[in-house]
Amino acid sequence: MTQMMNAAVVRGFGQPLSFDEIPVPAPGPNEVLVKIMASGICHTDLHAANGDWPVKPTPPFVPGHEGAGIVARVGAGVTHLKEGDAVGIAWLHDACGRCEHCITGWETLCESQNMSGYTVNGSFAEYAIGHADYVARLPDKVDFMSIAPILCAGITTYKGLKETETKPGEWVAISGVGGLGHVAIQYAKAMGLHVAALDVMPDKLALAHDLGADVAINAAEDTAVEQVIDETRGGAHGVLVTAVSVPAFNQALSLVRRRGTIALNGLPPGDFKTPIFDVVLKRLTIRGSIVGTRKDMEEAIAFAADGQVRPHIHETRLDRVNDVFAELEAGKVDGRMVIRMS
Amino acid sequence: MTQMMNAAVVRGFGQPLSFDEIPVPAPGPNEVLVKIMASGICHTDLHAANGDWPVKPTPPFVPGHEGAGIVARVGAGVTHLKEGDAVGIAWLHDACGRCEHCITGWETLCESQNMSGYTVNGSFAEYAIGHADYVARLPDKVDFMSIAPILCAGITTYKGLKETETKPGEWVAISGVGGLGHVAIQYAKAMGLHVAALDVMPDKLALAHDLGADVAINAAEDTAVEQVIDETRGGAHGVLVTAVSVPAFNQALSLVRRRGTIALNGLPPGDFKTPIFDVVLKRLTIRGSIVGTRKDMEEAIAFAADGQVRPHIHETRLDRVNDVFAELEAGKVDGRMVIRMS
Amino acid sequence: MTQMMNAAVVRGFGQPLSFDEIPVPAPGPNEVLVKIMASGICHTDLHAANGDWPVKPTPPFVPGHEGAGIVARVGAGVTHLKEGDAVGIAWLHDACGRCEHCITGWETLCESQNMSGYTVNGSFAEYAIGHADYVARLPDKVDFMSIAPILCAGITTYKGLKETETKPGEWVAISGVGGLGHVAIQYAKAMGLHVAALDVMPDKLALAHDLGADVAINAAEDTAVEQVIDETRGGAHGVLVTAVSVPAFNQALSLVRRRGTIALNGLPPGDFKTPIFDVVLKRLTIRGSIVGTRKDMEEAIAFAADGQVRPHIHETRLDRVNDVFAELEAGKVDGRMVIRMS
Amino acid sequence: MTQMMNAAVVRGFGQPLSFDEIPVPAPGPNEVLVKIMASGICHTDLHAANGDWPVKPTPPFVPGHEGAGIVARVGAGVTHLKEGDAVGIAWLHDACGRCEHCITGWETLCESQNMSGYTVNGSFAEYAIGHADYVARLPDKVDFMSIAPILCAGITTYKGLKETETKPGEWVAISGVGGLGHVAIQYAKAMGLHVAALDVMPDKLALAHDLGADVAINAAEDTAVEQVIDETRGGAHGVLVTAVSVPAFNQALSLVRRRGTIALNGLPPGDFKTPIFDVVLKRLTIRGSIVGTRKDMEEAIAFAADGQVRPHIHETRLDRVNDVFAELEAGKVDGRMVIRMS
Repeated sequence: MTQMMNAAVVRGFGQPLSFDEIPVPAPGPNEVLVKIMASGICHTDLHAANGDWPVKPTPPFVPGHEGAGIVARVGAGVTHLKEGDAVGIAWLHDACGRCEHCITGWETLCESQNMSGYTVNGSFAEYAIGHADYVARLPDKVDFMSIAPILCAGITTYKGLKETETKPGEWVAISGVGGLGHVAIQYAKAMGLHVAALDVMPDKLALAHDLGADVAINAAEDTAVEQVIDETRGGAHGVLVTAVSVPAFNQALSLVRRRGTIALNGLPPGDFKTPIFDVVLKRLTIRGSIVGTRKDMEEAIAFAADGQVRPHIHETRLDRVNDVFAELEAGKVDGRMVIRMS
Repeated sequence: MTQMMNAAVVRGFGQPLSFDEIPVPAPGPNEVLVKIMASGICHTDLHAANGDWPVKPTPPFVPGHEGAGIVARVGAGVTHLKEGDAVGIAWLHDACGRCEHCITGWETLCESQNMSGYTVNGSFAEYAIGHADYVARLPDKVDFMSIAPILCAGITTYKGLKETETKPGEWVAISGVGGLGHVAIQYAKAMGLHVAALDVMPDKLALAHDLGADVAINAAEDTAVEQVIDETRGGAHGVLVTAVSVPAFNQALSLVRRRGTIALNGLPPGDFKTPIFDVVLKRLTIRGSIVGTRKDMEEAIAFAADGQVRPHIHETRLDRVNDVFAELEAGKVDGRMVIRMS
Repeated sequence: MTQMMNAAVVRGFGQPLSFDEIPVPAPGPNEVLVKIMASGICHTDLHAANGDWPVKPTPPFVPGHEGAGIVARVGAGVTHLKEGDAVGIAWLHDACGRCEHCITGWETLCESQNMSGYTVNGSFAEYAIGHADYVARLPDKVDFMSIAPILCAGITTYKGLKETETKPGEWVAISGVGGLGHVAIQYAKAMGLHVAALDVMPDKLALAHDLGADVAINAAEDTAVEQVIDETRGGAHGVLVTAVSVPAFNQALSLVRRRGTIALNGLPPGDFKTPIFDVVLKRLTIRGSIVGTRKDMEEAIAFAADGQVRPHIHETRLDRVNDVFAELEAGKVDGRMVIRMS
Repeated sequence: MTQMMNAAVVRGFGQPLSFDEIPVPAPGPNEVLVKIMASGICHTDLHAANGDWPVKPTPPFVPGHEGAGIVARVGAGVTHLKEGDAVGIAWLHDACGRCEHCITGWETLCESQNMSGYTVNGSFAEYAIGHADYVARLPDKVDFMSIAPILCAGITTYKGLKETETKPGEWVAISGVGGLGHVAIQYAKAMGLHVAALDVMPDKLALAHDLGADVAINAAEDTAVEQVIDETRGGAHGVLVTAVSVPAFNQALSLVRRRGTIALNGLPPGDFKTPIFDVVLKRLTIRGSIVGTRKDMEEAIAFAADGQVRPHIHETRLDRVNDVFAELEAGKVDGRMVIRMS
């Protein structure tokens, strides 16, 4: 096995990532070493590299949490995984296993969790360490490039849709048809929902149509809300805000019918104004949703393995991460950029 | 039967109510005429009289939606109620019975609903009209003065507690120990919850203790949040904000543990800043709640009839409504003011 | 308007229906007179005609509760329906509107309900009376023949599937691919479920495949249970037993994985042996399900209107009802027999 | 530390337990050695010793799964427990941590679980091994004798009550006021439920009253069902059958109102006749429930620690286990027999 590996490393917040040779890590007890075949690039990696959030990672570190690959070595005590197994490195690196959240199937809320590419090194490297109990199991003959975005964009939107509590036959409005939204539309359709997609870019709306959205509406038009109300005969039953921005959030509250739920994906800094009168009178529910549990992951992967969800990907290389970050910041990325590692 | 009756009438927004003799109304089909024995005075009556909300009532009208009394006459087609039955006039006067909300047990969300003391005349009068299918059934030997506040303050907080989705053995924080909050504490205890009550007035905190709150904390202290986190070992599972004000709402989001729900009662005008990072990362749920359904009413009344919930009431007279409004605005009312009508 | 109409009438239990001219009924207050265009023939009609169940109808009466047609006349007080509206006469003729079940969206459990073709005359006639608040609303340009079976077979299986509490991506086993089962498969697919269909007839299994079942298994084979466990990787998450028979029920308990739910449609007389050890150790849930509420109906119709569910129908005539009953008893009916009335 | 310890050992099914000196076991990785202070005697221990169930334990083995004690030694890798901590050995010894049930908070359904006193040695000994992630945490100054029955009788009935899906203010009927039932009544009251207790023994009914049951009814009386229907105004919302016997189960189905749930605790061999007509027409739910999860345990213990649930215990000695088994079989045990170990 190689002793050194290529990795993209954050050496200081706001600086370009440096491309270094660093040692291949050794898996500890209950860990596996994963040879990364493909790694998606998520907006969160950019937030990590910039130190945007209140709780910051500690440079130097390797970002990346959409890493699909194969087990290269297993640590002590690992019995249910073996070399060659296809697995995924996702945002949730591990959790305590004992807190109230861990023992109720909500390990994503564990206060002692580690996050890949944040508190532990992630998948922007030839190898990464995963926790044997938390890596995602991938199908045997998976296409690593296509499955990579499921590990974060997929699970996040799938979970977000579940959190809207909409059910088959109902309407969900999906606000934003980007890296998250274009996957969300496909999950929603697979879940038997009617979809009203909203975006401000005509090509994204065309994509939404192609992906099965029942209606695609330009969110910037004056009549956008009216159109959604009309098409859904009274408002969507739920809204998934994939691009959490002030206007998207404000609009979301108008898209939903009484008793509807607005689920929020994404972690922009800042506050939103919540119109209390509407929330109370219409009995609205506003709910945050972050990534998903291992069970959500298993389900999200199954939909993809089944061919019901196919991320739109653009291939890139590890040494182009800084350019991709620039494109992400400029809002130029259509679908998902995925690094082909091997 | 008397042909004329005394009533407190709103003749113009923001003006003192006038005390007039007006005709006793006749019950139409499926309606009952209720002889009002007691009527609570709610903050909403003040909002109605001032025309505070976007959708306004049309003067002249009689406010009042906590009216407890007895059926004095039944309209055509009413077979399940008879003269002498004890009933209550609550906020929800009637609803369409056919919309998606009405047929799923959420008639409080019906867009064609009528509201007592708002779109139809209410209980600040010797008689009021109720819809036979929507008046609350009261126990035979009920104390009208004590039960009156259950018809709005009771049902509203009871429903709000249900909407927090807390369950027996868990902690609910109740923000505000006023007309709503002091009843909420009692419902919460009857529902098997642990209660952390918050208010800024020492006498209200003392009352909270008397009513069974496990802890009562001065919301104005710097360590208030810390104390709640401490006492509840990690944060309340749910929060009921009975006094929806900017500081109370902001504080509420800090009182709850991950995956907790904050339910909002009350309808102040204005917006609240929602910290998106916390809501997403902690998977918080923010939910509006308004009054309650007929089923909620039946349950809320049963708890009171059972002696588990006893509103603190102060007796007043119909012709003192304007004074009570002034006291309400000044925040001087402790518990609930109830008009003794007969 | 015609004063007399043709109808199939039960004059005594177990006797052939007689084809009589009887007066066209006049709609009372809140009722509508429906000109029947098509009426499905359900096994329940046979039970009614035979007086099979503990609570029996009173001859003479007109069976039929899958009646699709148009409003011919409206009774007093009906404002939301008008002549020419397409509506459906379903099993639930009306309910009290006030009991705990009615006010919580479970009017199907109302103890004062009337049932079409059972306690009131049904749709095996040129005209039938419906309650304005309970008739199903059909799309404007509906195909009456195709929609008729949705009014009972459709809603019953759709509700039954909901009662299994399975969710998109999970497996449901559907036991029996007859009048109910062949519709159930289509609803299940529209709801995002994986379907394992079971029947003992090869042609029914072929039909199941055509309708989208992921696997179709011969229930009579020794390895049937094993095959389901295998295909579903551990057992279905839910089972819908559409043909409630002793062997089907016993088998159902073996098809489900731990924590699964078995929902029962249909009303055969008799008892089933429940193996308590399995039910407790595996935490199984067994649940009865009967027809569906008005909300379920609205949803069930929407799936059909959307083209996602298409009953297999065979056209017949009113005067052939006795023959169809004989065929039903012999298990010879494939899909649903529907009477073309006009 | 002592090298040998006293234990009650099953050396062959159906034989009296033998009282042997066996080696004190050493805790492996992630295990703890628990010095047993008190151990309740459950009917399940009797089933284990008799080899009553389809899947049998392998003699020789030590029964016992209500073991309360203190950590005497910790195995490798145990960081969150230390010597002196008060813990409980319950039925669920450990589970795989990775299956669909384990990762969704339903580890009680794990197919790879170990059971204390069944697949691994239990608490009828001076020491027992527990898994560090699965032993119950007990309060610091706990009364070991009183808490022991909570570890099985407590959690089992508490979970069973949750599985009835009754909520505060509703009625639950508890069938059987024995070792499980007398605890169930207390949990039900703490959960805000109204309780109708049923038993055939007058002294048990008196006990039920003392423990807070709203009504206590002799299940053997002809009018028992009628009385429950009457007292609960239409039937209980849920039923917990703690003494699963044929007559109790049959009666249970009659005690519940429409849409009610019957939860079954206990594992008698055999089948029950389920009246399909009633189950479907009334939309009843029948559900098995076995012990409870770690979260249920934490909650069940909290109610007891809070003083809201107090098992009735009778002290016994380890060497009297065979006599207690005989008494259990004869139905002579009132409350719970608990072995004082030290």
